[in-house]
Amino acid sequence: MAKRSGTDKSACTREKAAEAATKLVARHGFAETTFKMLADGLGVSEAEVLRHFPNKNALMHEMVQTMIRHNHAVVDGLLRADDDAGYRLLRHCVGNVVWALRNRGAGAQILILLYSLAGRRKEFADTFDRMTAGGRQRILKHLMAGKREGMFHFTSDPATIAELLHHSLFGAMLYAAAAPEGSVKEAGLEAAWMKVIIALTNYDGQPTRP
Amino acid sequence: MAKRSGTDKSACTREKAAEAATKLVARHGFAETTFKMLADGLGVSEAEVLRHFPNKNALMHEMVQTMIRHNHAVVDGLLRADDDAGYRLLRHCVGNVVWALRNRGAGAQILILLYSLAGRRKEFADTFDRMTAGGRQRILKHLMAGKREGMFHFTSDPATIAELLHHSLFGAMLYAAAAPEGSVKEAGLEAAWMKVIIALTNYDGQPTRP
Repeated sequence: MAKRSGTDKSACTREKAAEAATKLVARHGFAETTFKMLADGLGVSEAEVLRHFPNKNALMHEMVQTMIRHNHAVVDGLLRADDDAGYRLLRHCVGNVVWALRNRGAGAQILILLYSLAGRRKEFADTFDRMTAGGRQRILKHLMAGKREGMFHFTSDPATIAELLHHSLFGAMLYAAAAPEGSVKEAGLEAAWMKVIIALTNYDGQPTRP
Repeated sequence: MAKRSGTDKSACTREKAAEAATKLVARHGFAETTFKMLADGLGVSEAEVLRHFPNKNALMHEMVQTMIRHNHAVVDGLLRADDDAGYRLLRHCVGNVVWALRNRGAGAQILILLYSLAGRRKEFADTFDRMTAGGRQRILKHLMAGKREGMFHFTSDPATIAELLHHSLFGAMLYAAAAPEGSVKEAGLEAAWMKVIIALTNYDGQPTRP
């Protein structure tokens, strides 16, 4: 019992540390964030933080995992069981851009940072590759569902459309996280992405509900 | 005469400094790159470098301008006067991704860095905004030319298509700069982007030459 509670406390501290680190990194930058700043913010000793993360690379990997978990929880929470594939894809795209917009001061900066680190340091190549491959796979899943449901009619092969949508979505997310405040308005996103989906899939945009 | 030669030398050193700084930043990161490293690399005194760039923000702005000039020179150099609008747009997209791929260790890292800095620090908002607005404008110009030439038939308004293509192109460039070596192959780019352009513009993909 005591052990279990100890494990829970440890897991919580690890995740809490990653969340606190995310905010520090989003404000100050990765190189500028120190274990001392993180320990001070958490009200624990530096040794306690170092027990969870022996170095900043380990901390970065945990921040990426936390960011992905948070993003998936938010975006998947928007999907509704009675939406057709067109609307599920729409909610996926809009949800991701809104997530980036609302997490400009947190996880979305970790997304940009991962691009930066992966481009310069081989030890982040796998993490970057897994994240982007996962993102592309999620889009392809929506596209194939739409094809099965007879909603989408592709003029190019679905893998090419998925790659385009993936680049477009990540481009839009990175833009939402970096562009001056007010450049991206949540209100216009659904209409814009609906046009995009129609252009790429010939979806008729009329949701069918069972 | 002496003054003119002095000015030329100064301009050259400023651009050379920005180029050298770009390589250092692409390798070590922005925070990790010091004026001392830059001066050592150039074989000049730190005071000489500081005469051009009073601080790292000024250096970053020059790196961005150098990166944009280089990108435009490379991409515009690919356009051929006898290409129709569809092929000009194709060369624009492929050229930008190839530029990012070939400049993974230089300018393309400055592109990622600008996203990172703009998201965290207001003093880079204008620079980021000008760069992305310029990129979107260049795409819109190609789209409108294709419409005038009777090559493109849009199912959505051109501004929406331009925004999608812009996000997709920047997304693809950032991916090319960050993804593990070999993830993006130059050989496949032209066919993939031709499919993208056809999907978005209903371009028939048959170049017309006068």
